[in-house]
Amino acid sequence: MKTIITHANVITVNDQNEVIADGAVAFEGNRITYVGPTPGDLSGYDQVIDGRHKYVLPGLINTHGHAGMSLLRGYADDLPLQEWLEEKMWPLEAQFTREQVKWGTHLSLIEMIRSGTTTFVDMYDHMGAVAEAVASSGMRARLCRGVIGLTSEEERRRKLEEATTFAREWNQQADGRITTMMAPHAPYTCPPDYIMQIVERAEVLNLPIHIHMSETRFEVEQNVKDYGVRPVAHLENLGVFRRPTLVAHAVHLTDEEIETLAKYDVKVSHNVVSNLKLASGVARVPEMLAKGIDVSLGTDSSASNNNLNLFEELKLAAILHKGVTYNPVAVPAEEALRMATRYGAACVFQPEALGSLEVGKQADMIMLDASQAHYHPAHNPVSHVVYAANGHDVTDSIVAGTFLMRNRELLTIDEEKAVSEANRMFQLLKR
Amino acid sequence: MKTIITHANVITVNDQNEVIADGAVAFEGNRITYVGPTPGDLSGYDQVIDGRHKYVLPGLINTHGHAGMSLLRGYADDLPLQEWLEEKMWPLEAQFTREQVKWGTHLSLIEMIRSGTTTFVDMYDHMGAVAEAVASSGMRARLCRGVIGLTSEEERRRKLEEATTFAREWNQQADGRITTMMAPHAPYTCPPDYIMQIVERAEVLNLPIHIHMSETRFEVEQNVKDYGVRPVAHLENLGVFRRPTLVAHAVHLTDEEIETLAKYDVKVSHNVVSNLKLASGVARVPEMLAKGIDVSLGTDSSASNNNLNLFEELKLAAILHKGVTYNPVAVPAEEALRMATRYGAACVFQPEALGSLEVGKQADMIMLDASQAHYHPAHNPVSHVVYAANGHDVTDSIVAGTFLMRNRELLTIDEEKAVSEANRMFQLLKR
Repeated sequence: MKTIITHANVITVNDQNEVIADGAVAFEGNRITYVGPTPGDLSGYDQVIDGRHKYVLPGLINTHGHAGMSLLRGYADDLPLQEWLEEKMWPLEAQFTREQVKWGTHLSLIEMIRSGTTTFVDMYDHMGAVAEAVASSGMRARLCRGVIGLTSEEERRRKLEEATTFAREWNQQADGRITTMMAPHAPYTCPPDYIMQIVERAEVLNLPIHIHMSETRFEVEQNVKDYGVRPVAHLENLGVFRRPTLVAHAVHLTDEEIETLAKYDVKVSHNVVSNLKLASGVARVPEMLAKGIDVSLGTDSSASNNNLNLFEELKLAAILHKGVTYNPVAVPAEEALRMATRYGAACVFQPEALGSLEVGKQADMIMLDASQAHYHPAHNPVSHVVYAANGHDVTDSIVAGTFLMRNRELLTIDEEKAVSEANRMFQLLKR
Repeated sequence: MKTIITHANVITVNDQNEVIADGAVAFEGNRITYVGPTPGDLSGYDQVIDGRHKYVLPGLINTHGHAGMSLLRGYADDLPLQEWLEEKMWPLEAQFTREQVKWGTHLSLIEMIRSGTTTFVDMYDHMGAVAEAVASSGMRARLCRGVIGLTSEEERRRKLEEATTFAREWNQQADGRITTMMAPHAPYTCPPDYIMQIVERAEVLNLPIHIHMSETRFEVEQNVKDYGVRPVAHLENLGVFRRPTLVAHAVHLTDEEIETLAKYDVKVSHNVVSNLKLASGVARVPEMLAKGIDVSLGTDSSASNNNLNLFEELKLAAILHKGVTYNPVAVPAEEALRMATRYGAACVFQPEALGSLEVGKQADMIMLDASQAHYHPAHNPVSHVVYAANGHDVTDSIVAGTFLMRNRELLTIDEEKAVSEANRMFQLLKR
């Protein structure tokens, strides 16, 4: 089946940041076969989709989250991270069964597809349920069983085996849409030797590491108290960065730590909304970008966001760093868009396959309804996408050449059932 | 005509922040006649609207903007305020005729109605065109001709007369939906004696003052150089604060200046997105709120935002101050919602008539589609409105008891024509 989208504003996010007016994107199977001006002859295509008044751009890549936690949206706000985690999240999450995670994840998939995310990273528990939901939804994801080591030795072993089995069995499944990682939850929730064991498994499986790091000042201070060094040196010492690594948050970094991350090519997921809402602080994004670090965007979970609309992160990443550094070019619009796409692709360790509209890459793309007032006057599409657009403008979502949403209609998820089951699962929790 | 909306989640934003599950709001003419549980007997109503799966809340109040400038959306981004103003905005705005302002304003009205704003403040030129657009659209607005005094004495006199005539003739027009103010543009664009003349006119007309103030560090430093004092003392000395005053921005304030604003009951429009995007800084909102200052939300114009979706300001005001002060309760959800509604009503000097759903107040309200995934699990509506909702969730907008939008369909503006005319007007400008 050969499909072509015609007469659209095509925002390629290629090396030249090319934007093609009256452009077209074609794909066959899961690959992009053409990106350029709308051809005069369309006879070679089985399906021609009119892209008039639409923008077509690479699907957004959400590089950190916990999809199952959408079940806790609005359950606890306006609290400090540690209290929020220990007194609110963890006691409810401890009651989560596979069913809670399944329906929380469905809720998240609906939100993400509707707001333009085509690939996401998920670190959580009951990952089999998450992987099955990803497989059936048609989404692309890099998944990992996040392990917290504040438990008995036996429990730690059990979790490590579970994480290993999950990572081995699900890697490259669902036609390659699902890949995996190994994930020690954080330096403050995993004893050093446990982190080393997890890294060893990642080595054996040849998989990347995903970990929370330096999210709060408290955590950094605690790390120094416990281990005599800040989290970056701690993880470096434990050998984590010898594996390809994606760290989430990275809010509190010294210049030296930024150098270290750059040296090891550590990838960073910037969770701008969550970091503000939990009062964690503002990450040094312009400095990291200047050092060539791949900084991408993550929503974190709906419990600390409280949605999974990556367009909010996109705009906020573009404006926040300007405002707090008094530098109006701190993160220009084009750079913010790269964070949401290309750098996201690097952060899920698939830079060749994802993140831009180029021939040979995976056909992961979204269409925006640019007929609306906030896309006018009709010029400067990149500016409009970053500063004026919204996740709800997404009309179509395509992953690996398959439509997951067409004209706002979800094609792979029963939305009504998912919403109803998510509510039922939430009601079952003791609060 | 007696209308009632039934079976909705009614977020009243009254003194008790009451949220009524299975609630109802009724109105007759332009007034609210009932707020409470859905009554069993609906026979007294001419029109019964099913609010199932909807939230009903007071219409949002956007307390600072320049609607005509939507014509310059995306024309210049990622520049410092002074350069952006002097090299980009002003040269194009100098070419604006009444037609440019008319269609730029129509574009803005579409965006605002679609995203839940029912009252807005506008400071601009060609205000007759703005007022006519407001009158025909059914919106509510507090309007003022912003005067810049960096001109000849004669030109200054002409502008002052124009501003005065506009303020006198349009106050309380359109069934009272339009009110006016007098507006010296800013301390740095108006010589002191000119500001005093404008204040005098406001005195005669018994109208409030609206002015930009302390938006950038540069502006504050310049004020000290030029007049020996910072902007707050400068305006205090000129007698501005003896009139009811709404200042826009108020980013750079000392403790003493906050005290002064509180003493005079000066109202503040917090333009959080614009302040970040233009790299102006972060206003001291928690400190102002703590002193009892009415701090409300403004989008500023689409040229520095780049949309008029006040839900973005609502969420950002709630999360930004947490993040930059490391205080997770800096601006709690309920307080943020008050900023967008009640405090907005105070900032347009109509606290008795607007800002909450209470019997006797104006029937200005919006309905949100809470059936969507990001409103679930279905609990804690205030949290969902502030942290999860989006302007595009607004299905219905009612101002003074009249529907301006019903089920996402605009009833008072020809959207296609407005978008097309706005593009034509932009094309006519020399760039």
